[in-house]
Amino acid sequence: MRAATVRDGEIVVEDHPDPTPGHGEVLIRVRAAALNGADMMQKRGLYPAPSGWPQDIPGLDVAGEVAERGPDATRFAVGDRVMGFVGGGGQGELLVCHERLLMPVPDVLDWPRAGGFSEVFTTAHDALFTQGGLTAGERLLIHGAAGGVGTAAVQLARATGAEVVASVRNADHHAGVAALGAGTVVVPDDVDGTFDVILELVGAPNLPANVKSLNMLGRIVVIGIAAGAKGELNLGALMGKRGRISASMLRGRSLEEKALAARLVERHVLPLVARGVLDVPIAETCPLADAAQAYERFAAGGKLGKIVLTMGA
Amino acid sequence: MRAATVRDGEIVVEDHPDPTPGHGEVLIRVRAAALNGADMMQKRGLYPAPSGWPQDIPGLDVAGEVAERGPDATRFAVGDRVMGFVGGGGQGELLVCHERLLMPVPDVLDWPRAGGFSEVFTTAHDALFTQGGLTAGERLLIHGAAGGVGTAAVQLARATGAEVVASVRNADHHAGVAALGAGTVVVPDDVDGTFDVILELVGAPNLPANVKSLNMLGRIVVIGIAAGAKGELNLGALMGKRGRISASMLRGRSLEEKALAARLVERHVLPLVARGVLDVPIAETCPLADAAQAYERFAAGGKLGKIVLTMGA
Repeated sequence: MRAATVRDGEIVVEDHPDPTPGHGEVLIRVRAAALNGADMMQKRGLYPAPSGWPQDIPGLDVAGEVAERGPDATRFAVGDRVMGFVGGGGQGELLVCHERLLMPVPDVLDWPRAGGFSEVFTTAHDALFTQGGLTAGERLLIHGAAGGVGTAAVQLARATGAEVVASVRNADHHAGVAALGAGTVVVPDDVDGTFDVILELVGAPNLPANVKSLNMLGRIVVIGIAAGAKGELNLGALMGKRGRISASMLRGRSLEEKALAARLVERHVLPLVARGVLDVPIAETCPLADAAQAYERFAAGGKLGKIVLTMGA
Repeated sequence: MRAATVRDGEIVVEDHPDPTPGHGEVLIRVRAAALNGADMMQKRGLYPAPSGWPQDIPGLDVAGEVAERGPDATRFAVGDRVMGFVGGGGQGELLVCHERLLMPVPDVLDWPRAGGFSEVFTTAHDALFTQGGLTAGERLLIHGAAGGVGTAAVQLARATGAEVVASVRNADHHAGVAALGAGTVVVPDDVDGTFDVILELVGAPNLPANVKSLNMLGRIVVIGIAAGAKGELNLGALMGKRGRISASMLRGRSLEEKALAARLVERHVLPLVARGVLDVPIAETCPLADAAQAYERFAAGGKLGKIVLTMGA
C-alpha cells in the first residue's frame, strides 16, 4: 500500500507492506484522512507516535470502509463506513486498528468530512464536557476558535445551550466562526466579560487574563500551548473563584480510554451530526499522491476548515 | 452574652445582646470553639465575615447544646449536642445558626474536640474527596501537614486507603504527624517520589515541584497560600500528566453549599469518628475570658493540635 511517510523531516509517499488485522481489529480501506497539528510536529520529529502504531506514517484522523475483520472483531461488517481518532498511520491506503476505536459514519458526512471529524470533535467533546463540565446556560470563551478543535468546540457548545465567545486573531475568519455559532467573535485583546469555562487552545500567555475573567466555580481547560507553555498563576485569585485548571492531551491515552471517548462521541455527538446540527468545515481536499503539498498548505495556515487527504475512487 | 470580640485589631471579651433564632435556626449555648487561621486574619482586619454573620465576633468552629429552636427548626431537640463549621461568631457564649449547618456530636468527642472538629475536617474532606477525588490505593502528598487541616487530612486519607507523605517544616512535629497515620514525614526539601493527589496548604512556592511530581491524571488541590499566592505554572508539563489544579475556600460559600458539605461529613466522616478511627488533636484549652492569650499562643505557632476556647461549666 501507499502511504504518506516521514523521511528525514519531509513528507514523501512510499510503499509499505499491507497490514493484517489481529484480534479484535479491522482492516480499513482508507478513503479520507485529515491533517492535524500533531502531524506537523511528527514531521519535525517532535511528537513520536505512541507504541503499537505505525511510527513513520502520520495521521490521527481516518475514515474508510471495513475491508477485513480480524478474529473476534464483531462491531462492523465488511463494507461498513467507519471513522476514528487513531494513534497514527491514518494517512495511508490501509490501516489496521482496534474496532472499539471506530465509530459508524453518519450518512450525512461525505468522505472528506468523515476523515476530518474524529480528532477535532473527540478532542473538543472531551475538553468541554468530560474535563470542563460545560453545561447549558454557561458562558464559554474559546481562545483560538478558528482552528479545527476550536470550530468543533464552537459548534458543540452552541448546540448544547452554552453562550460562546470566540477569540480569533485572524479577522478574516471572524464571519466564518460566527456562522458556526459563536455569539461573539473578537480578536484576543478585545475579549470582555467573565466566563464559566475557558477553552485554551493558544497557550500560557493567556493564563493570567483567563484566571482574572473566570466566574465563581469556573474551569479553565488547556489543550493547546503553541504560544508558550509557562505562565504565571495567581493561586490566590483561583482560590477566590474556587476555580479549576485542567490540562490534557488525547494522543497518549490507553486503548480503553480512547475507546471510552469514542463511545461518548457516538452517544452524544453523532446524533447531532446526523440531525445536521454540526458540520465539519473543509478547507480543501488533496489526493494522497500530493501529500507533501497538503502539508505545506497546512503549515502556511490561514485556512478555516480541515485539509483532508483523499484515497482511492 | 459574653463573646471574644475584634476591637481595633485586638481581641477583647465584651458583652453582646443575646441572639434569637429565626426561621429554621437554632440558638446554641456554646461549650467550645476552636481558633483557626481565619480568625487571625479577621483580627488583623483582612478577612471580613460573610454577610449575615456577626461581624465583630470571630469563630468558625462551634460546639454546644441546642438551647432554643426557631420556627420550623426540626433537626435537633433542645439539649442535643451539636457542632458545625459556621460563617463567624462561634467564639461567644451564644450563637444562632441555621440547623442544616450543624451536625450531631458523636459521644466519643468531648467538648474541646467537638469545638475543634468541624472547620478542619470539613475543609480536609472537601479538599481531598470532593475536589481532589482521592481514592483508595492512591499516593497523597500534604504540604503543611502539621496544621489543623493537615492533621485532619492525614487521618482521613490514611483511613480511606491512601498512602500519605507528609511535608512538615518543623521537625518537632514529625513523630506526632506520623502517629496520626502518615507513612512518611519529611521536611519540604526531602519530598521524594510522585503523587496522585497533592494537598497544598503552604502556597505558590511549591507549585513547580508539585506539577513535576504529579502522576498521570494527578490532582493538585490548593487551599492555603500563606507562603505566597503567585507561582510559575508549566502548562506543558501539566498537559503531559493530564493534570488538574483546583483552588478553593469554604468560608464564602452559600448556605446550601455549606449544608451539603456538612451532610457529606455527617455521612462519610462522623462514622469514622464514632469508631475511634479519627481524632481531633488538642494542643490546649483556654476559658473564654482568656481569649486574648489564646490568640497570642495561636499566633506564636509551634503547636500540634487545636487551641480551643471553652465556655460555661
